[in-house]
Amino acid sequence: MASGAKPVLYTYFRSSCSWRVRIALALKGIEYEQVAVHLVKDGGQQHAEEFKVVNPMRQVPALHIDGITISQSLAIIQYLDETRPGPQLLPQDSKKRAEVRMISDLIASGIQPLQNLAVLHRVGEEQQEAWAHDFIVQGFAALERVLQDTAGRCCVGDEVTMADMCLVPQVFNATRRFKVDMTPFPTIARINKALLELKAFKVSEPSCQPDTPAEQRA
Amino acid sequence: MASGAKPVLYTYFRSSCSWRVRIALALKGIEYEQVAVHLVKDGGQQHAEEFKVVNPMRQVPALHIDGITISQSLAIIQYLDETRPGPQLLPQDSKKRAEVRMISDLIASGIQPLQNLAVLHRVGEEQQEAWAHDFIVQGFAALERVLQDTAGRCCVGDEVTMADMCLVPQVFNATRRFKVDMTPFPTIARINKALLELKAFKVSEPSCQPDTPAEQRA
Repeated sequence: MASGAKPVLYTYFRSSCSWRVRIALALKGIEYEQVAVHLVKDGGQQHAEEFKVVNPMRQVPALHIDGITISQSLAIIQYLDETRPGPQLLPQDSKKRAEVRMISDLIASGIQPLQNLAVLHRVGEEQQEAWAHDFIVQGFAALERVLQDTAGRCCVGDEVTMADMCLVPQVFNATRRFKVDMTPFPTIARINKALLELKAFKVSEPSCQPDTPAEQRA
Repeated sequence: MASGAKPVLYTYFRSSCSWRVRIALALKGIEYEQVAVHLVKDGGQQHAEEFKVVNPMRQVPALHIDGITISQSLAIIQYLDETRPGPQLLPQDSKKRAEVRMISDLIASGIQPLQNLAVLHRVGEEQQEAWAHDFIVQGFAALERVLQDTAGRCCVGDEVTMADMCLVPQVFNATRRFKVDMTPFPTIARINKALLELKAFKVSEPSCQPDTPAEQRA
């Protein structure tokens, strides 16, 4: 870094999009500082005026790095990939890159936004569980089919990519929060299980972050 | 193309995500064939078994090119940018690329998914207009603020990028379908107006596609 300062990640332990970026940072071996933004406490700290300067979308994650602040997890991951050494988070081959982006966007645009806090709040307490459950199941049905063409040990072939960074946090949300039965999605389940064995996925998971409350620690 | 065949775009004239890709194809000067997938007729042609093979997410666009089929508009646009000559759809500079992806994802993950047909169907007829309106206004408020740091004549500086391909179709939806007042968003409105003067945006717009019904033609 030009400034010599560590990158600063604005994050929330339970945020699946923050988790994606934590995995990327871990894989690249980048040291960083965390600023916790509690999405529930105080009516949601993301709505505070000082955070709106960081990310006007009032969402985590955002990464302050190299003198700029980037929001949107996939933009952050690709910036890290283009500017930092270490394992490639997207493959070199253009077709494989397209597959990685297609799977990442299937999750990041096609599933996650429909089950985030702001949307569920609007859906209302009574219906939000069925709502999230159904959109995740629809998305996973598509993803399962896509992975049959692209997957090896990971979402695209045998190397960890951005697509895997999207998959694991989405499966976590699906199974822990919305009680999605993974039986119809054996490929997703298999890849998820293998990825969770990897250190970069383990150290970045919600149960062991600096802002994880004591009662939710693993 | 290896096969000598033209790329095939699965598209729907009113789909904002299809429009993004039509702009990219026009800017790059790529000739292609269109297969219309009517998202309403016959209960939605995207639900047909033969289309599920093209895109298991049952959404347009999808592009068959170079022997593969890519879905998700931003994955398609970036594939075109990496494999085809012509104007760059993302800047060379890493920080500018991050800004382009951040803005693209703000729209593609943060706004569009909350106002697409499947979601509005689930929201129900009575509430869907207010629902879409409110999520677009929230997203535009953030986008307006982001653009104050990034915009020149276009979303990021003075060159047309993927971010602009996301902006114009989203403004179209906002103003034509959901009656969003653009007065609070002068930067978005200014950029949108300038972009609509460009040929690639004009030839790709919903009113003049092969599948545009006669009564909706400009």
